[in-house]
Amino acid sequence: MFEELKERVYCANMELPKYGLVTFTWGNVSEIDRKSGYFAIKPSGVDYDRLNPEDMVIMDLLGNKIEGRYNPSSDTATHIELYKAFAGIGGVVHTHSPWATSWAQAGRGIPCYGTTHADYIYGEVPCVRCLHGREFDAYEKNTGRLIAEAFADRDYQAVPAVLCKSHGPFAWGKDGFEAVHNAVVLEEVAKMAARCEILSPQIKPAPQELQDKHYYRKHGANAYYGQKN
Amino acid sequence: MFEELKERVYCANMELPKYGLVTFTWGNVSEIDRKSGYFAIKPSGVDYDRLNPEDMVIMDLLGNKIEGRYNPSSDTATHIELYKAFAGIGGVVHTHSPWATSWAQAGRGIPCYGTTHADYIYGEVPCVRCLHGREFDAYEKNTGRLIAEAFADRDYQAVPAVLCKSHGPFAWGKDGFEAVHNAVVLEEVAKMAARCEILSPQIKPAPQELQDKHYYRKHGANAYYGQKN
Amino acid sequence: MFEELKERVYCANMELPKYGLVTFTWGNVSEIDRKSGYFAIKPSGVDYDRLNPEDMVIMDLLGNKIEGRYNPSSDTATHIELYKAFAGIGGVVHTHSPWATSWAQAGRGIPCYGTTHADYIYGEVPCVRCLHGREFDAYEKNTGRLIAEAFADRDYQAVPAVLCKSHGPFAWGKDGFEAVHNAVVLEEVAKMAARCEILSPQIKPAPQELQDKHYYRKHGANAYYGQKN
Amino acid sequence: MFEELKERVYCANMELPKYGLVTFTWGNVSEIDRKSGYFAIKPSGVDYDRLNPEDMVIMDLLGNKIEGRYNPSSDTATHIELYKAFAGIGGVVHTHSPWATSWAQAGRGIPCYGTTHADYIYGEVPCVRCLHGREFDAYEKNTGRLIAEAFADRDYQAVPAVLCKSHGPFAWGKDGFEAVHNAVVLEEVAKMAARCEILSPQIKPAPQELQDKHYYRKHGANAYYGQKN
Repeated sequence: MFEELKERVYCANMELPKYGLVTFTWGNVSEIDRKSGYFAIKPSGVDYDRLNPEDMVIMDLLGNKIEGRYNPSSDTATHIELYKAFAGIGGVVHTHSPWATSWAQAGRGIPCYGTTHADYIYGEVPCVRCLHGREFDAYEKNTGRLIAEAFADRDYQAVPAVLCKSHGPFAWGKDGFEAVHNAVVLEEVAKMAARCEILSPQIKPAPQELQDKHYYRKHGANAYYGQKN
Repeated sequence: MFEELKERVYCANMELPKYGLVTFTWGNVSEIDRKSGYFAIKPSGVDYDRLNPEDMVIMDLLGNKIEGRYNPSSDTATHIELYKAFAGIGGVVHTHSPWATSWAQAGRGIPCYGTTHADYIYGEVPCVRCLHGREFDAYEKNTGRLIAEAFADRDYQAVPAVLCKSHGPFAWGKDGFEAVHNAVVLEEVAKMAARCEILSPQIKPAPQELQDKHYYRKHGANAYYGQKN
Repeated sequence: MFEELKERVYCANMELPKYGLVTFTWGNVSEIDRKSGYFAIKPSGVDYDRLNPEDMVIMDLLGNKIEGRYNPSSDTATHIELYKAFAGIGGVVHTHSPWATSWAQAGRGIPCYGTTHADYIYGEVPCVRCLHGREFDAYEKNTGRLIAEAFADRDYQAVPAVLCKSHGPFAWGKDGFEAVHNAVVLEEVAKMAARCEILSPQIKPAPQELQDKHYYRKHGANAYYGQKN
Repeated sequence: MFEELKERVYCANMELPKYGLVTFTWGNVSEIDRKSGYFAIKPSGVDYDRLNPEDMVIMDLLGNKIEGRYNPSSDTATHIELYKAFAGIGGVVHTHSPWATSWAQAGRGIPCYGTTHADYIYGEVPCVRCLHGREFDAYEKNTGRLIAEAFADRDYQAVPAVLCKSHGPFAWGKDGFEAVHNAVVLEEVAKMAARCEILSPQIKPAPQELQDKHYYRKHGANAYYGQKN
């Protein structure tokens, strides 16, 4: 019944090792079917080279397992909160990709230093604080809530990624593949921003009009990049 | 009619992922047939692993599409300006290769710190300013014009590459393959220059006579590198 | 008689080049059979691409060779000391993996800057001092003793790795494969910690409660990561 | 007549791209037959993926071409000077490997920060000055002489590599393969030394007794690493 969704989520998960975003099992992708409210997610702690489409776990947004012999990713509750808060997204990904994670460990958002960033992400990638105290009682759920709060005054479609301090990145998109695409962009952008700061320690973000030009070259009614129209 | 040109430009584009210069579709190569004034260029936003020779788009220097089912690269107008300004070149390439882009984001030209650079590029790789205001109305065209202006007092054959601030590099050559070759050199040189500055923050460019020796070992009437004579 | 052990240790050694932890012969893995007290270890200075399972050398904890045509790894005496000091381990690995070795050369332990580290290693990875004077008379043995001393007040199961100043890392685990797994984690953690410090020179270790949360999500009675229960 | 020598030198050259030491044609290996005084060297500017054993060029130590349809490497005169000055070597390699070249561009020798370095190279890898003035009239020959001078008070067998300021590294060994082996070591050591200095800017070289221990563990009458005895 969920075969197509499982196949898609399996393939999106397999993009993570392909693009060098994961070591061992340090990442997970999910995709939701908004009609049924069910989503498929990678099982917890299963090696990528042993993974099969049928291993994907089907969950609902209350956290119930609908189908699957494995436990879902330990980050499932974070995925649920993001699906609930961001109605327009269809896929979520979490990784420990090394450059983005280094920024997260440094507790810093990633400024927009150039058009590679602006082509996909409108402005800084924010870094949300660590949880503390009783928030740890529902750690993964509260991680999702904290991200949602950080986007109360941001457009989650224009900024499709976030860093969690001392932890790592989450990214999202209209489906699992776009979420992974954004995670790859994030890693590349994180790498170049770090090197840019070494080369020019006083560097400022790219001019706003350049950011606007590049973002709207690819997004919105007047986009003219690609083969869309 | 343009089959050989398309095949060449396809192959030159496929060198970009081979040498690690592109992520996703972040790069494009063109090559011009100076007799007809037509050039072939990569289509916009098409994945490298789905690209075929027949997907290349044939354009003229007025920006008219002569042949092809796809839209040409969104950077086509920049390629046109470079072909118009630099009469001796036959190929142009644009990438977001990470080290060169990091220098561009830092807003810095790349000094010549050694013979790897001097073997191919005579002196600093310049970094041109960002566009602003009304220049954005014809963004890609004005990017090309700005580069051309920066070479009013430089030899575009001796310095076959440029950085655009907050954006990334362009490179060129006598054909598409040489343009890509120079883009690979630029990325390697950008990497080593960044590391060199970390190791020796007060480092100066290589002595002029060493730069001369290496550049003219490979270029000009007295060149003796390779199998040319 | 030792065929299964040799096969396992051969496979664990072959993971080192697979994960990019070794250049040439700069690494070795051993695994012990606690019942017999014998362990298998890589021969000294034999290239990975010429290695076969039958080349593994069987040793006892007194340093006697039980079986094998080759000399055992020159680091064998260190492995022996670790097996003697850490009764709960079954595998040991030594590499010169570049990021961990850079920290060792810098003479610094690796602080826990994030959850990637905390998921596997509880607190700082310590860096033990260089040997000196008469300690060099039994260099490899005394290296093992020094490590054991450093863990007199640490839990070797919660901190399954160490750096030796001006030298490189050792890691261990319940068997050879887990030891290699921990060596890969160590290298990844070393890389991200170095970059994190560049991005945020005043950064402090991750909050203790976050470290606790992640470590105990994967270890101990209340662990809920993976498919264990 | 020289088929075996050509085959060996061809294979040693092909190790350069295998170990990631060269981009394009930026490297060359030679090996000498001390009985005849002839050596084989890579032709100048020929791509590695088009190279064949029969393309190797046979030269004598006066710089005469004995056999081969191609021009020899443009660095041939440097190889000759090293063979003349260092009677105990049988192979020479030159590359622009990125980490070693970054140190050369920075004008700094590489201190011995750890045992990876000490295992192969006894003490600092020196960096010789740039040539100037009339020395450029015989650039490649004088590069070799300058290196030889720098080793007037050094043991070229204990320090089998050198950096040339603003240029790059040369390495050597008892044959072409050992020369390449030492070039790989040099690149790895250069990488880790650079990172070590970032992690600990005030770091000093490894203690002399540790350097001695590791060097003599692998070299000389009391060596016990590997399968030699």
